[in-house]
Amino acid sequence: MKLRDLGEFGLIDRISRIVLSTDPDILVSIGDDTACVKVGDRNWLLTVDTQVENVHFIKSKINPVDLGWKLSTSNVSDVVSCGGKPRFALVSVSLPKNLEVEFVEGVYRGIKEAQEYYGFKTIGGNITSSNQIMVDMTLIGESQTFIPRSSAKEGQYVYLTGFTGLSRVGLEMILSGKGVSEEEVYFIKRHYRPLARLDKLNTILRFAKSSIDISDGLVSDLYHISEQSGVKIVLEKDRVPVDDKLRLYCLKNRTDPYDYILYGGEDYQIVFTSDELIEEEDIYLIGYVERGEGVYIKEEGRVSGLSKRGFNHLV
Amino acid sequence: MKLRDLGEFGLIDRISRIVLSTDPDILVSIGDDTACVKVGDRNWLLTVDTQVENVHFIKSKINPVDLGWKLSTSNVSDVVSCGGKPRFALVSVSLPKNLEVEFVEGVYRGIKEAQEYYGFKTIGGNITSSNQIMVDMTLIGESQTFIPRSSAKEGQYVYLTGFTGLSRVGLEMILSGKGVSEEEVYFIKRHYRPLARLDKLNTILRFAKSSIDISDGLVSDLYHISEQSGVKIVLEKDRVPVDDKLRLYCLKNRTDPYDYILYGGEDYQIVFTSDELIEEEDIYLIGYVERGEGVYIKEEGRVSGLSKRGFNHLV
Repeated sequence: MKLRDLGEFGLIDRISRIVLSTDPDILVSIGDDTACVKVGDRNWLLTVDTQVENVHFIKSKINPVDLGWKLSTSNVSDVVSCGGKPRFALVSVSLPKNLEVEFVEGVYRGIKEAQEYYGFKTIGGNITSSNQIMVDMTLIGESQTFIPRSSAKEGQYVYLTGFTGLSRVGLEMILSGKGVSEEEVYFIKRHYRPLARLDKLNTILRFAKSSIDISDGLVSDLYHISEQSGVKIVLEKDRVPVDDKLRLYCLKNRTDPYDYILYGGEDYQIVFTSDELIEEEDIYLIGYVERGEGVYIKEEGRVSGLSKRGFNHLV
Repeated sequence: MKLRDLGEFGLIDRISRIVLSTDPDILVSIGDDTACVKVGDRNWLLTVDTQVENVHFIKSKINPVDLGWKLSTSNVSDVVSCGGKPRFALVSVSLPKNLEVEFVEGVYRGIKEAQEYYGFKTIGGNITSSNQIMVDMTLIGESQTFIPRSSAKEGQYVYLTGFTGLSRVGLEMILSGKGVSEEEVYFIKRHYRPLARLDKLNTILRFAKSSIDISDGLVSDLYHISEQSGVKIVLEKDRVPVDDKLRLYCLKNRTDPYDYILYGGEDYQIVFTSDELIEEEDIYLIGYVERGEGVYIKEEGRVSGLSKRGFNHLV
């Protein structure tokens, strides 16, 4: 069988069965945004993410500084969604020998900007040659409490930290060669310069019972919570925030903004469930948790199922 | 400028200047076999290493189980050389979509064999698609004491934990399509199934003042100690251990065994310096540290300089 027939999640399942093992110091292993281990008196969160040329970015279309930034943000976002503060990074790069030194320096300048913004430090890494550019970051975070995907419960509210779908519009503009108008720059910046919601860490730590960051897409990531918690999640369509510029863009192009909002990935907002009613800027109540399974949307009193489609790295 | 003109070590230098930063909890950063950070009451060692298709291995010539083993061993070896015990691993893979699932499962079975042998646990990772197979492991080790490359001092002895050069002979045999005779299997096993010297960790912790694992080659890695410690290292040629089968192989092929012993990489022995005279199995006294710089060899009373050639990943 080929990987494309098995898919990313099927492969994760097979791999887990091979290498997974228990240890009193391992609190959370494969299957969440980060792993969590107990070291002495602390909990450490560990995550790794990779950006591959022609899979995650096209060299001629990206500023290497943005590549370093985006890689860092996707890792920081995983740590934040589990309730952690980013601390230390290792950066492993595989690079073609005929690549310009300036490109690589740009990537590291983007990482430096991110480490200053998010407050982590790069402490090591590896360099090797390859045909494709590949930049891999392992990030270690620190936390008192681990917030998993698997603790959503019937009766909880579902919250989202901000607009989704913008990064996906930006990606489409990049791929079609746009990037000149003010509107285009707005969306493209959301794709190349996303912000991990470290500014909401205290809120997450105070209120969240289960949590995930939106890298694959809102619905797709809610399915992870739904499946790992064994619950049904219902989104209330008119509560899901819609960015004004996205609404306008979709009106102009006669497309449905909810295609972007529900299924666009890489916005790095956090979606979490909580027992409490939260009133806070940038914390949107978008739905609730019920007994059952699956992810649904409620519109004008009617509840319908949402399909799972989202990004799968091997299909 | 292209990467091939700058080289691996030139690039590390430039990158370090961009991202390096200090923190009271960072004890050792970029430039050693592992980084070392203080977490609560413990020291954690962190390292990352990558195996890239057609750079580190050829798919048609390697058993994927060996690939997983070798990747694990190279990481464990870095942790051991710094005085640590391996604890937790993250495995990040980039894979072509048309790769056979069996190959990937084989890699993870090799990692599982290694984690059982060396006693670490795999707790997470990442999967993405790519054109080339790439397997990247981040390993976290634990230690009370960090043994750096930079603490060799005049008057110390230089020790080696075993034979070198065997992996290189094995690699040449693999590349020339050999692998049938008992002799060939012997060397090829040294290349595909190297052993990290975790069994010598207590000796290293008790005696070593500076230490490095031999991944690039004995001389090349001694240059790292020499440069980072600011000392001269003299090897005594007749003390450097020579494997019997290697001697025989070189006699047959009219080649110089010291080309392999001094410059062959990936044997994952440990070379370290110590103030003490050690008498122990598999701990070979091979030279001494003097004031000065560079790496030299002493033969029949004559001391001559050794060139630095060794493996450079970008040239």
